[in-house]
Amino acid sequence: MTYPEQYDQYLHMVETTLERLLPQTQDACPAQGGMPAHLCETMRYSLMAGGKRVRPVLLLAACEMLGGSLEQACVPAAALEMIHTYSLIHDDLPGMDNDDYRRGRLSNHKVYGVGHAILAGDALLNYAYECMLRNAMEHADNLAGLVRAAEAVAQRAGVGGMIAGQSLDLLSEHEAPSLERLEYIHMHKTADLLTAPLLAAASIAGADEPQLAALTEFGRCIGLAFQIDDDLLDLEGDAALLGKQTGMDAQRGKMTWPALAGAQAAREKSRELWDCAGEALACFGERAWFLREYARQLRGRKN
Amino acid sequence: MTYPEQYDQYLHMVETTLERLLPQTQDACPAQGGMPAHLCETMRYSLMAGGKRVRPVLLLAACEMLGGSLEQACVPAAALEMIHTYSLIHDDLPGMDNDDYRRGRLSNHKVYGVGHAILAGDALLNYAYECMLRNAMEHADNLAGLVRAAEAVAQRAGVGGMIAGQSLDLLSEHEAPSLERLEYIHMHKTADLLTAPLLAAASIAGADEPQLAALTEFGRCIGLAFQIDDDLLDLEGDAALLGKQTGMDAQRGKMTWPALAGAQAAREKSRELWDCAGEALACFGERAWFLREYARQLRGRKN
Repeated sequence: MTYPEQYDQYLHMVETTLERLLPQTQDACPAQGGMPAHLCETMRYSLMAGGKRVRPVLLLAACEMLGGSLEQACVPAAALEMIHTYSLIHDDLPGMDNDDYRRGRLSNHKVYGVGHAILAGDALLNYAYECMLRNAMEHADNLAGLVRAAEAVAQRAGVGGMIAGQSLDLLSEHEAPSLERLEYIHMHKTADLLTAPLLAAASIAGADEPQLAALTEFGRCIGLAFQIDDDLLDLEGDAALLGKQTGMDAQRGKMTWPALAGAQAAREKSRELWDCAGEALACFGERAWFLREYARQLRGRKN
Repeated sequence: MTYPEQYDQYLHMVETTLERLLPQTQDACPAQGGMPAHLCETMRYSLMAGGKRVRPVLLLAACEMLGGSLEQACVPAAALEMIHTYSLIHDDLPGMDNDDYRRGRLSNHKVYGVGHAILAGDALLNYAYECMLRNAMEHADNLAGLVRAAEAVAQRAGVGGMIAGQSLDLLSEHEAPSLERLEYIHMHKTADLLTAPLLAAASIAGADEPQLAALTEFGRCIGLAFQIDDDLLDLEGDAALLGKQTGMDAQRGKMTWPALAGAQAAREKSRELWDCAGEALACFGERAWFLREYARQLRGRKN
């Protein structure tokens, strides 16, 4: 199979799973267990907004590489997209980043109001675990592996993972920027949720310790590189918009790699991290062909 | 054992479990997996604010009644308190109920700001599942039962449960009140999270279908009665404060049982529900002595 064919297959799997788990509903007050129509709409507005599905694709690709079951992996993959989406909805709220737009559309709270945006985020987070738990019960032959996968997701998404990064990020507005603090924030706010699908895949497939360590390193590298590239793209956008000098000024005071270490050092750090990501996959040999190519695509992205 | 002794024992179990799962930390940027100090403080502020621990006590009492393991039940009990607490933090936010006070203290966002209150809620919700998943892995001899318990909690806390009720409640500000809609909201916003601990206990203890049905009915009855009593207490508070006639006026337009059906009908409905709750426990005979007495205490509460 070619890379584009394989990529489309993974993407199709993610979209159909999300559509199956969260179909449009019409019922305002459904019977026990059903989802009210308006709540469902607020969740779907952000979940079906054309995200790149990076985390689910990583999970499916890593699972297949390790010989795990894609049928078991579909729901955890979709659940990770729910968790990623809830974090974006809450990040956009007033009191957090207060962003009116996301992916070129009005952010969730601009359409449905702050109250329902809070609930839509809560609902996606809770539903992610509800789906993973039910999926584990439905695959009793790999119950322990699927529970370990859900636990890995919870750990990286939670108080020692993504939310830890978000908390430090919020606090950093009032504190002196430092590269050490910045790395902590990037590691947790961004990299942890890119490592989560790899660890979940390893649990589902029953990977051994060296494989787990290699995937953890791969996730860490692409996560940190991803964030630095984001900051560099922002800088170039600002530079194109405002002129080179003021582009750098616009980043000043922000906690970003280019602002703290300079654009050149940031570019070097990014290159180094992408190289490390490639090396981390070496132990999987040819079986890592898709992840290797996918990392190349993520590295070349322009938005 | 007497009722007060048994009650204190359950309460002690809940408090020590919460303290073990969420101890105070000092580290601003802890190593992988650790909780940053400020995030931990924001979570503890609301979690350790002297709640009555109704849901955890219900879980432990039902589990012991059914012959289940209290050691296995401690963490799910604490997790339910985390979920209840997150829902209160988010309910108090501007855009939701916008309350400055909770249990006689400033609400979470008045102390830590809206951004951190959102994160503290997210963190408690995610951590509830992280703890339940880890607890399930640590008790491999009852893995399936503990996963089923976590799934029952997720189902009642989520898009077909508590959050469904919250969503309809938010929408109801703009819609014509009706008793049917009110029952839907009470059933989900309040009763579902009181049924959750009973269903979780049944899963942990491996209860049979008739026992499950009896506990579901018990949860539904005390949940709905609890909410009607709350509304009646509010009404009496308003009446004492504002005089009888204006007390009723203050409730007008609100979606409450007394406002929609009158105080007398509300009192009758409450009595009927508490009686039903008692009857639901009949099939457990003497083993239900604690739950029966606990329901009596909840019925007699004055706040």
